[in-house]
Amino acid sequence: MLPESKGQATAAVAAATPSTLVALLHGPDQPGLVARVAGWIFERGGNILHADQHRDTEAGIFFQRIEWEPANGDASADTSAFHRFAAGLGMQARVASSTHRTKVAVFVSKADHCFHDLILRSRAGDYTADFALVVSNHPDLGPMAAGYGLPFVHIPVTAATKAEAEARQIAVLRDAGIELVILARYMQVLSNDFLDGFGRPVINIHHSFLPAFAGGRPYHQAHSRGVKLIGATAHYATRDLDEGPIIQQDVARVTHRHAVEDLVRKGRDLEKTVLAQAVRWHLETRVLVYGNKTVVFD
Amino acid sequence: MLPESKGQATAAVAAATPSTLVALLHGPDQPGLVARVAGWIFERGGNILHADQHRDTEAGIFFQRIEWEPANGDASADTSAFHRFAAGLGMQARVASSTHRTKVAVFVSKADHCFHDLILRSRAGDYTADFALVVSNHPDLGPMAAGYGLPFVHIPVTAATKAEAEARQIAVLRDAGIELVILARYMQVLSNDFLDGFGRPVINIHHSFLPAFAGGRPYHQAHSRGVKLIGATAHYATRDLDEGPIIQQDVARVTHRHAVEDLVRKGRDLEKTVLAQAVRWHLETRVLVYGNKTVVFD
Amino acid sequence: MLPESKGQATAAVAAATPSTLVALLHGPDQPGLVARVAGWIFERGGNILHADQHRDTEAGIFFQRIEWEPANGDASADTSAFHRFAAGLGMQARVASSTHRTKVAVFVSKADHCFHDLILRSRAGDYTADFALVVSNHPDLGPMAAGYGLPFVHIPVTAATKAEAEARQIAVLRDAGIELVILARYMQVLSNDFLDGFGRPVINIHHSFLPAFAGGRPYHQAHSRGVKLIGATAHYATRDLDEGPIIQQDVARVTHRHAVEDLVRKGRDLEKTVLAQAVRWHLETRVLVYGNKTVVFD
Amino acid sequence: MLPESKGQATAAVAAATPSTLVALLHGPDQPGLVARVAGWIFERGGNILHADQHRDTEAGIFFQRIEWEPANGDASADTSAFHRFAAGLGMQARVASSTHRTKVAVFVSKADHCFHDLILRSRAGDYTADFALVVSNHPDLGPMAAGYGLPFVHIPVTAATKAEAEARQIAVLRDAGIELVILARYMQVLSNDFLDGFGRPVINIHHSFLPAFAGGRPYHQAHSRGVKLIGATAHYATRDLDEGPIIQQDVARVTHRHAVEDLVRKGRDLEKTVLAQAVRWHLETRVLVYGNKTVVFD
Repeated sequence: MLPESKGQATAAVAAATPSTLVALLHGPDQPGLVARVAGWIFERGGNILHADQHRDTEAGIFFQRIEWEPANGDASADTSAFHRFAAGLGMQARVASSTHRTKVAVFVSKADHCFHDLILRSRAGDYTADFALVVSNHPDLGPMAAGYGLPFVHIPVTAATKAEAEARQIAVLRDAGIELVILARYMQVLSNDFLDGFGRPVINIHHSFLPAFAGGRPYHQAHSRGVKLIGATAHYATRDLDEGPIIQQDVARVTHRHAVEDLVRKGRDLEKTVLAQAVRWHLETRVLVYGNKTVVFD
Repeated sequence: MLPESKGQATAAVAAATPSTLVALLHGPDQPGLVARVAGWIFERGGNILHADQHRDTEAGIFFQRIEWEPANGDASADTSAFHRFAAGLGMQARVASSTHRTKVAVFVSKADHCFHDLILRSRAGDYTADFALVVSNHPDLGPMAAGYGLPFVHIPVTAATKAEAEARQIAVLRDAGIELVILARYMQVLSNDFLDGFGRPVINIHHSFLPAFAGGRPYHQAHSRGVKLIGATAHYATRDLDEGPIIQQDVARVTHRHAVEDLVRKGRDLEKTVLAQAVRWHLETRVLVYGNKTVVFD
Repeated sequence: MLPESKGQATAAVAAATPSTLVALLHGPDQPGLVARVAGWIFERGGNILHADQHRDTEAGIFFQRIEWEPANGDASADTSAFHRFAAGLGMQARVASSTHRTKVAVFVSKADHCFHDLILRSRAGDYTADFALVVSNHPDLGPMAAGYGLPFVHIPVTAATKAEAEARQIAVLRDAGIELVILARYMQVLSNDFLDGFGRPVINIHHSFLPAFAGGRPYHQAHSRGVKLIGATAHYATRDLDEGPIIQQDVARVTHRHAVEDLVRKGRDLEKTVLAQAVRWHLETRVLVYGNKTVVFD
Repeated sequence: MLPESKGQATAAVAAATPSTLVALLHGPDQPGLVARVAGWIFERGGNILHADQHRDTEAGIFFQRIEWEPANGDASADTSAFHRFAAGLGMQARVASSTHRTKVAVFVSKADHCFHDLILRSRAGDYTADFALVVSNHPDLGPMAAGYGLPFVHIPVTAATKAEAEARQIAVLRDAGIELVILARYMQVLSNDFLDGFGRPVINIHHSFLPAFAGGRPYHQAHSRGVKLIGATAHYATRDLDEGPIIQQDVARVTHRHAVEDLVRKGRDLEKTVLAQAVRWHLETRVLVYGNKTVVFD
């Protein structure tokens, strides 16, 4: 097992700082929302640290991310009270404590670049999260996970056993109390049954091209087409894989001098940074999903 | 004179939309500020459209940009009342109406790339501003200004006549009611007397390099040093030219294949886009200056 | 008419520098090609200034851009001799003189941002080209063209008159000796008959998105989808509009705070810079097309 | 020890491909150089795969990177012959075989982000190099190095022992046959004696800002100044640390919302990618140094 980095110590110190609450809320726009939310917190003795609002004027929807220190540090009472308050306004709310460490499972297949990147960032104290579990349809990365001291669950998936395998995946995730699944180049499409059964967010990363390419071997297609940019997109997994709400995107420049292998290598670097940023925003309760898009309060 | 583009028509339509107020305020942080500001607007029947807050926790300063529709569209009463309200909180405030068209003067010397870029954006309706005046220490761009139908004032500047020339500049700006000066590659340093005498914002654009180069001919120095990036920085002019609060920065990649002329050309493109963005943010009342830095509510 | 900028003077000076030849050649790879081409130039007393090679190892094709000073400045003899030499090697060659000013026509509809940008760059001496003609299916930009002292030809296009209109376009281009057409937001699809009849390069610019969107109003679709990047692609027009060989691409970052109008505005800025760069590379004989892709010797 | 990744297998396959030679040469420009170099290779039965030339017209210097397959794969004879040939032309040459695996030592202190990034890229088969040694002035990363199966040499450095410590470092590097040192956030300035004594390239990474900041705690200074971009620069270490020939630079965008810790974190990501790219170019014999600048044949 790799020794623990000093990130763990940093995380411990961070946990000692006073707890704050972060709420993401959205719903039908109406006059006075900003004042009513701020007033509610103020009256209960809370102190607002950050507040960011957005209006989708076409759709008539109001969005807000608001962070405050509750009076006496009584986070749990404020959390339930805020949910009731938001419901009274006809709004949907999600409230998270800044000290809550989200339990994360990483799904992998054979590629290990996003896997290493996420785990090393976690160990460096970048994320308020516990990476608790690695799940894979292949055994290859098992020793790597062991090297990091992480439980590794090998669940093979075939067309014939997919339903059964996914049921087992859900059972494993529930047993471990997992709150977020990250698909770190997991090369299997998750069924709707899995997504519904797990019932919690799943973040995926995939390559993106201008123009887009249907079919297999997209880097070969992009190379044949002579594209000058390649990209990566991180999004929440939904019933249409690769079509869920986009969290983050980025591109890198390529030229005719780059072979297909260079495109693949540059693509790996993009996938790492784009996925890492999307995961960070999610863990910091900065991503609000509505319809098929996101509002990222960065 | 170049015919008017359809931007003017767009601007006219925009002016017909209901007026909103935008306030930028900042001052010592204290609990309840968000609630009190939002409450004040709500009680007067206003509807908050956007609100963005920021805290400099080290310095203990609170910053806010807030935009609202005043009740009955009574913008001027709300403006003065808000100033009093902010003063009561110990905060500094600036309030602008969304329909106010800022009067702008552009200072130029001989280079015309930023000049054309700004004027064409203005004509395309990109800015809620009236470009009212072009001032130059050289006569060269006079015919260009005339082509756009813009008054052009040629005020030569020499070491001996600088004080006198600046006094005349200030007089011209005051007569025209100018509220913002843009230095679009104006190759003269403005004295503190000018900045104090004019008493309104001045935005400047200059090249930036990693590492920085002192002395003349910076593109030649950057080329000699083999830099891989060149940059441009837009900032408010202050007593130390090139050292005022930064509004926007950007860079472009260069290689050994680029001659000094290529660096200069790429620098021109950077200067155009960086200056245009800084001007846009300023005109939309998105830039709050404190100390020697800015908070840009983009 | 806008007065001429000092760019014209710069161009005049550039024309006084000694003429060089630039050859783009490609064909089946074979050992010794670099040596044979270099040897041919050397034996005739020429001095090679730049040479850049590329191999598509999968397709077995060799690509070269080579620039040299011919002995005694005898460019025209070298040009025809080089064509024969390349043919003897089984290669296709294109040879251009550095002092040749390409005759350019700009096609526009109503949008004027790319139009102004190209013309101003031309006037600044950025291009070794003569912008000789503006062609439009609408009369709107006629006065703008007149302001720049450029001939403007209004050729309306309807479904019924398209064939006839294109025939007239070709006639106009031929009369003016046009060697390159730039579609600067020209909102008509050119038919294969036009492309074949004109028989010279046509460069187009269009928006690009990740993911791509079929159908109309792409900026609205991108906004609905919550994309985090918007892009633009410059390419040679071919039988499949928007599908020809890509010359240059770039992207800009957008957030939920950007309305559709902001996406459109940022798209305009992208279109300007991407098209300007593609045109520059084409005019400097840096773009070699083969199959449906380009090799850009930048 | 972490298990070996499949990168090793990839590297083994690559080693089976036919060997090529890469020469970097530069010297006083003279007519016919391209033809003479290409002719020399051709006459010996070699096949040129890539050739890229550059001229610094101001300084009158010619630069070339040329890669060829030697006849009969006789790389070592060609290598010494090419050195003699280049010397005969008055040029300096460096020749490397594509199958040579450069022996690399990584110098670290306590920060581990660049360390992990380099080692994982090496294990993924990204580099034709053997990472043979980790040297540190602190013991902290010893267990990490052991986890990767890498020898770790702890050489403490104090002002009093610096000369002695550097002598020991040089001895260790020589014993291991190290050909390249990478300073992966090694927080000690190397003396001229070390650089002369080691006598081989040393690549360093450091942060860069617009404007530059002298003195300590640069991220704090950048935050106070409100910079909108932070950067990183990879360069060869020379007598003036942080002033050697630049290999690669990049920047990331920051806003007022980013605390100093965010700048530091974004800086770490920049440092990783910029250093990794610089190392790759160096290992692929793409970086030619002359004076205080580089020509990067990318």
